[in-house]
Amino acid sequence: MSDETVAPTRRRENTRQRLLDAAAQVFAEVGLDAASVEAVCERAGFTRGAFYSNFDSKEEMFLELAGRVADERVLAVRARVAELESQGAFPSAATDALAIVQRVIDMSAEDRLGVLLMSEIRIHALRSPALAEAYLTQEEQMRESVAQIIDDIARAGQISFRVPAREAADLMLMVWESASVRAVMSGEGQAGAVRRTSEKLAAVARLIIEPREP
Amino acid sequence: MSDETVAPTRRRENTRQRLLDAAAQVFAEVGLDAASVEAVCERAGFTRGAFYSNFDSKEEMFLELAGRVADERVLAVRARVAELESQGAFPSAATDALAIVQRVIDMSAEDRLGVLLMSEIRIHALRSPALAEAYLTQEEQMRESVAQIIDDIARAGQISFRVPAREAADLMLMVWESASVRAVMSGEGQAGAVRRTSEKLAAVARLIIEPREP
Repeated sequence: MSDETVAPTRRRENTRQRLLDAAAQVFAEVGLDAASVEAVCERAGFTRGAFYSNFDSKEEMFLELAGRVADERVLAVRARVAELESQGAFPSAATDALAIVQRVIDMSAEDRLGVLLMSEIRIHALRSPALAEAYLTQEEQMRESVAQIIDDIARAGQISFRVPAREAADLMLMVWESASVRAVMSGEGQAGAVRRTSEKLAAVARLIIEPREP
Repeated sequence: MSDETVAPTRRRENTRQRLLDAAAQVFAEVGLDAASVEAVCERAGFTRGAFYSNFDSKEEMFLELAGRVADERVLAVRARVAELESQGAFPSAATDALAIVQRVIDMSAEDRLGVLLMSEIRIHALRSPALAEAYLTQEEQMRESVAQIIDDIARAGQISFRVPAREAADLMLMVWESASVRAVMSGEGQAGAVRRTSEKLAAVARLIIEPREP
């Protein structure tokens, strides 16, 4: 199929995705500050013009890259919850917070780059009001998505929570971020990182789950 | 008093503190990456030799600066708890987590620079195993200090917690860090930042405090 037969919006979407893919590679190699628009364009095989007709700035593009990573994770978790629910797996795990967390959160995917990317974006957002606003908006959307998942789990497992789903989501995300950063820093490798992060999230889950009447 | 009459260890300590003070100023002006050893030495009025006989690297010095900020905060909180305890203020506040948090945590001090500094050190620690080890050690010491404070509050207010003091300390510190970063990003100013961070910490406190028997 030649370019002329691809609708302009789809071609634009392809360009956008290819730029994001190239950015992920360049970032992995040299980090956020050293990753120039030129280097990303060269890697993707596009001109600077193509870049700036899709993104306002380098930081904005990297924020969108981070958002893409986050969206993929949320989709995976949501699919997992639906799968477990259809298997009738929830009620039996309802009293064991660690079991719920381990079943729901598939953390087999390597996420060191995701942690590095979010941490570096945070720095830039702390010094740039425009990027900060975009960052906070994305954080809010993530919170909403996770709150929805928590509501689904509550219904499927007949679990009550001591705080509203949105509050629970916020706590889980804050702890996830801290635990992930600590895991990367400790250099203990993928298995250790997954186990420690799961335990931390399970500790929070135990605090927010309403104990069943004896 | 001439330098010759000051014991070598005290003179070394003075040099160290003056370098740290200068580093705080330079960091505030240009950030961590742009803050060179040369700029810090020039600001402090010392030679590079004086710097490297006190610190292994720029990053190590900035980590110690962050530690100094953290130590000051812990000391302030500890003093506040002792003051409240001697005033007999705790038992009446025992059922209100927000009251406890607001009484204990004096957040009147501007802390935007502290937030920026810790965030930038984190980035470097994520990419440097040596700095990561030092960072994690410092984090552990902070956790121990806060756990001690939590034990003091438990005793003074006759409060029980649902998790061990160390676990409670870890959660409070994780949430503090996230809430502080969010507050700086939201650009809502000091009062708003203090209020939002207090509310977040109080929400965690409510979850970890064992409810009193009715």
